[in-house]
Amino acid sequence: MSRILVINPVSTSRWDVSDYDYLQRYVKSSTQVKVVSLSEGPTSLESALSVAAAEPAILATVREYERQCDAIVLNCFADPGMRAAREISSVPVLGAAETSMLLACLLGERFSVICLDRQQSYKVRRQARVAGVSSKLASCRWVGMLPLQLDSDRERFQDLLYTRATACVESDGAELVVLGCTGMAFAAGRLAGRVGFPVIEPMVATVKMAELIAGLRLTTSRRGLYSLTRLVG
Amino acid sequence: MSRILVINPVSTSRWDVSDYDYLQRYVKSSTQVKVVSLSEGPTSLESALSVAAAEPAILATVREYERQCDAIVLNCFADPGMRAAREISSVPVLGAAETSMLLACLLGERFSVICLDRQQSYKVRRQARVAGVSSKLASCRWVGMLPLQLDSDRERFQDLLYTRATACVESDGAELVVLGCTGMAFAAGRLAGRVGFPVIEPMVATVKMAELIAGLRLTTSRRGLYSLTRLVG
Amino acid sequence: MSRILVINPVSTSRWDVSDYDYLQRYVKSSTQVKVVSLSEGPTSLESALSVAAAEPAILATVREYERQCDAIVLNCFADPGMRAAREISSVPVLGAAETSMLLACLLGERFSVICLDRQQSYKVRRQARVAGVSSKLASCRWVGMLPLQLDSDRERFQDLLYTRATACVESDGAELVVLGCTGMAFAAGRLAGRVGFPVIEPMVATVKMAELIAGLRLTTSRRGLYSLTRLVG
Amino acid sequence: MSRILVINPVSTSRWDVSDYDYLQRYVKSSTQVKVVSLSEGPTSLESALSVAAAEPAILATVREYERQCDAIVLNCFADPGMRAAREISSVPVLGAAETSMLLACLLGERFSVICLDRQQSYKVRRQARVAGVSSKLASCRWVGMLPLQLDSDRERFQDLLYTRATACVESDGAELVVLGCTGMAFAAGRLAGRVGFPVIEPMVATVKMAELIAGLRLTTSRRGLYSLTRLVG
Amino acid sequence: MSRILVINPVSTSRWDVSDYDYLQRYVKSSTQVKVVSLSEGPTSLESALSVAAAEPAILATVREYERQCDAIVLNCFADPGMRAAREISSVPVLGAAETSMLLACLLGERFSVICLDRQQSYKVRRQARVAGVSSKLASCRWVGMLPLQLDSDRERFQDLLYTRATACVESDGAELVVLGCTGMAFAAGRLAGRVGFPVIEPMVATVKMAELIAGLRLTTSRRGLYSLTRLVG
Amino acid sequence: MSRILVINPVSTSRWDVSDYDYLQRYVKSSTQVKVVSLSEGPTSLESALSVAAAEPAILATVREYERQCDAIVLNCFADPGMRAAREISSVPVLGAAETSMLLACLLGERFSVICLDRQQSYKVRRQARVAGVSSKLASCRWVGMLPLQLDSDRERFQDLLYTRATACVESDGAELVVLGCTGMAFAAGRLAGRVGFPVIEPMVATVKMAELIAGLRLTTSRRGLYSLTRLVG
Repeated sequence: MSRILVINPVSTSRWDVSDYDYLQRYVKSSTQVKVVSLSEGPTSLESALSVAAAEPAILATVREYERQCDAIVLNCFADPGMRAAREISSVPVLGAAETSMLLACLLGERFSVICLDRQQSYKVRRQARVAGVSSKLASCRWVGMLPLQLDSDRERFQDLLYTRATACVESDGAELVVLGCTGMAFAAGRLAGRVGFPVIEPMVATVKMAELIAGLRLTTSRRGLYSLTRLVG
Repeated sequence: MSRILVINPVSTSRWDVSDYDYLQRYVKSSTQVKVVSLSEGPTSLESALSVAAAEPAILATVREYERQCDAIVLNCFADPGMRAAREISSVPVLGAAETSMLLACLLGERFSVICLDRQQSYKVRRQARVAGVSSKLASCRWVGMLPLQLDSDRERFQDLLYTRATACVESDGAELVVLGCTGMAFAAGRLAGRVGFPVIEPMVATVKMAELIAGLRLTTSRRGLYSLTRLVG
Repeated sequence: MSRILVINPVSTSRWDVSDYDYLQRYVKSSTQVKVVSLSEGPTSLESALSVAAAEPAILATVREYERQCDAIVLNCFADPGMRAAREISSVPVLGAAETSMLLACLLGERFSVICLDRQQSYKVRRQARVAGVSSKLASCRWVGMLPLQLDSDRERFQDLLYTRATACVESDGAELVVLGCTGMAFAAGRLAGRVGFPVIEPMVATVKMAELIAGLRLTTSRRGLYSLTRLVG
Repeated sequence: MSRILVINPVSTSRWDVSDYDYLQRYVKSSTQVKVVSLSEGPTSLESALSVAAAEPAILATVREYERQCDAIVLNCFADPGMRAAREISSVPVLGAAETSMLLACLLGERFSVICLDRQQSYKVRRQARVAGVSSKLASCRWVGMLPLQLDSDRERFQDLLYTRATACVESDGAELVVLGCTGMAFAAGRLAGRVGFPVIEPMVATVKMAELIAGLRLTTSRRGLYSLTRLVG
Repeated sequence: MSRILVINPVSTSRWDVSDYDYLQRYVKSSTQVKVVSLSEGPTSLESALSVAAAEPAILATVREYERQCDAIVLNCFADPGMRAAREISSVPVLGAAETSMLLACLLGERFSVICLDRQQSYKVRRQARVAGVSSKLASCRWVGMLPLQLDSDRERFQDLLYTRATACVESDGAELVVLGCTGMAFAAGRLAGRVGFPVIEPMVATVKMAELIAGLRLTTSRRGLYSLTRLVG
Repeated sequence: MSRILVINPVSTSRWDVSDYDYLQRYVKSSTQVKVVSLSEGPTSLESALSVAAAEPAILATVREYERQCDAIVLNCFADPGMRAAREISSVPVLGAAETSMLLACLLGERFSVICLDRQQSYKVRRQARVAGVSSKLASCRWVGMLPLQLDSDRERFQDLLYTRATACVESDGAELVVLGCTGMAFAAGRLAGRVGFPVIEPMVATVKMAELIAGLRLTTSRRGLYSLTRLVG
């Protein structure tokens, strides 16, 4: 049995229930998923500034739950607080971007990421560099909608997403796409059905990877970048 | 429910039952694992020559089973026949080396691989390059035993493995290790218990990844490197 | 005197004589060229699947002739069986893609490869990565014709080739081009005459490189990736 | 005239005056340096955790002062809060690690960084990767002392530093060294005098670079990674 | 006080006075700038040939002045003679291209360079590779004017420059631009005012960097690539 | 028939005859080799300074002979004047280092270079980077002898060379070695006989490559880095 803590790193619980329901369809019966959001901090993470603002509450949540779970998922494509969370947690911590980009490498030679807007594309490009998969990132396209528009005009979003995903594969040399926001989860199934190539939805991919890693009793190494105790020499 | 086909790409069934038993301890109850070996070809894969010799039988096995399973695992660190298997299979195909090296990237900044002998280290280094993770490979060490010795002198193997793994982390800058042969599976648990950093055993890691990918209804992209149908233009 | 064995890795001898005649014009008088094709296997190599199917016959051919020649050329841009052939051969083994891409690096900063169709472009891109010359590959374009069309409509092929080659240099930043199929040999001279920049025809380039390497009494190193004898420790 | 704000990103003002005095010796007469520390947060930054804890106070300081200065220096080799600070600041923001490693590239082909302890070496290696200068980092050595020991046993520190720096150049292929902690500033001059190769002290290097950038009326680009305003499309 | 020698590596003194006047506006009062040109050699450096022709006179100038100055600037984007000048000079030697491209890395994730013509773009691309910043070079565009036209039709040049710079940021993913010729200095201020993102003018950037390096008593390392004395063993 | 001009880029003709005799043993009968040295310039090239001093005479030699030959070899591991020579020559120009390092890539995964002294090792490392083969360079070792000692104490040189070459393969992961000086030619055969792995002697390798390229009527591309005529737009 694995217990996966999913942290929605925003100070609103509006997606907690729907995320839980969505994830329940994919985890195995013996896995317990718990979705929590933050008591304070920004309501969305679109910048390094908002990530910094959210980080104290994220880390407090990690501390609060890390002894009651077997793996932790940071449910946002910004991978907010991932480095610090790994330092303080005795269980593995996974970020949605890093996990889904590495998973993509198993399914094709090059992948593209589709973001909400142009600004995110710069951040994703850097994340790919930090994760060491720059050479696998074929392109980064964006739909050009605000997060709120995404909910209110889902049809338009679906169409734009389809157009972008197709362009990634037809014009940019990608073999598959990764959705660049965990809030796009609702659209993944329909997109995958239309395009005929793999579409990685980062929220479920990361939760499943957490389940895999916890199931193998693996965890983040604490003998290098993520060590916290000071060992001189 | 997922059905995972594990191909032991050798013409001996001697490990089929023990591998099955071992894997049963890790897959979820709704997953069916089937372990098969080859009817012809080499009994071990230590060279590109033996891989080439095994490939026709591997591909015949893929063809025979691919409509009766949801994912295929090539259970050998040489990832034999992986490219061709992906071309002909409608379900995802995973190799032990590529999968476990990418998984390692989620658990630390740099990893090492421990092989049986020096020769394998050259092949692993190249596999890391092909998989695009060269910059994450801290080192490649070897125990210096023959495959057959491995079974007959397990204590010595365990000690050598411990010595090598420790050296990778203490001297080479690795944060975790990947075992460079699926035949080392028996030793993984004890090693992990002794060293205090993550040890990835490639057989189970790859089978679990196959389960993950099949569970998400993902598959290898057929729109690029692994396409088979000729589409002009 | 050097004896170069050229393996047409297909089960048809239809190109053996014309290839021999073509190569005779370029090798020195003291060089003996022998062109052989396979007794079984596919008639063309367009996929990893067909490469795997051809490999046993390729290796059998290598074994049969390697003591009667000073170098072996795998006459196909897929470099089929190259790794295994190097393991078993006491003479150097060269593949058309690896050889011509490295030769291209001596003639300009970046080169492009022109393939038959889109699918090949993914394979070439990967070959460039495996060969370590990704950063020198400016682009990979394709003419969009089937291999059979290539013979039956040579004028159209020549025109498309010219258009693609020009685009590589004008738009993609390439300084020269490599033809991405040894079957395009007939078109190389005319193309080179029209474009005014270097055009590398891989068949003759690889045969000449084999002659060079054999003449210097060099061979593939057997002390690393291509070693076959197991040396523990 | 340039006004440089130096943020000591720790909740102690113990180094503010000595840093000011030290920097005064290097800036031009028309430059005003102001050194401030944080009102809350950790007293030292040795982990991602402490960086996250310091970041809110760092960003508050940036906001408070950014209209009263022409450039901001984050005076710590961890470059804490650099990304977010760049998003919110209308003046350039420089981190000590990124700046001194890029400066090092102007003085030699490869450089080494000398840290306090082993843990820092993993973080520095990653910083080099994020900054895109991994291939220029010859090695990362550490003195093996605690920060507090550094002040109380300066002679021993100087000797260890000399030993490490010499080893970087003699054994690791470095041509110069970068001190991996702004708290090592006191030791830089003497080290440089003994070794005969360049030693970059990151605090003064970064302040001088801030002066240079402000003097040229340059600033961080706000048209990509560091943009804050959401621009759809 | 720092004394900066600026070498205009051409055999015409026509820009010496205007460069001096321009630079005076940026250096600090205690800095002495001296601008010299060559007594013989080409009047412009547009090729490796002209660089080779200029190099003896450049090195003679370095020898003549290196004991009377604290840093030397090679005032041309070709960085002519930089390696040899570093070998023979006891003071730091900076090239305009290397310096301004590394400075650009501090202001954004990726930058573009704008050259005079297409040919220069190949040279700049190579310079970026030699400097180790290829992955930061988003693109290299050119205005398409001859050097002489640049002076005689400044309005047209300004317009073309604006168009190119905008395209770099809008279409190529750059966050800032570097002017690819020190002769474009006159246009930098107006361009920066129009575009709203940083524009690095290489002449002043390099002189200021020389002032910084000299002020910190740093110099090129003589313990590696730039060593001249032969030390066996 | 091919005519190869070999430029010994030093102002002494002492090696011209012996080099000619040596090369005669390798080129085909229809190839004419001509070895020339410079009328002025340094007698040996051990630094960028000496390369710069030699370059005018090298280029004068290229101009004098380029219409009377089919390829030009710069017979020194420093590849002196290669870029400029390519700009002005209508025939291909090859440098010993670039050519032999790229040839090495055809014979094994990684190679080492053995230089005369430590200083050269820094230059070779940079040459590998410029040639784009850094990832293939396993190590760079040096014998630790002066060029003049090399002639006077050949036995000691042979022994040191053997020791270094063996260490490259046993300890550094190289699969073959490249001699890092064309003056080591006399020792190549004996070394190759002793070590059992390939040894590339750069002088003959480069002359043979020139013969190959000329024989295929290939040449350096003049449509990019090596173009001389100014083409606006």
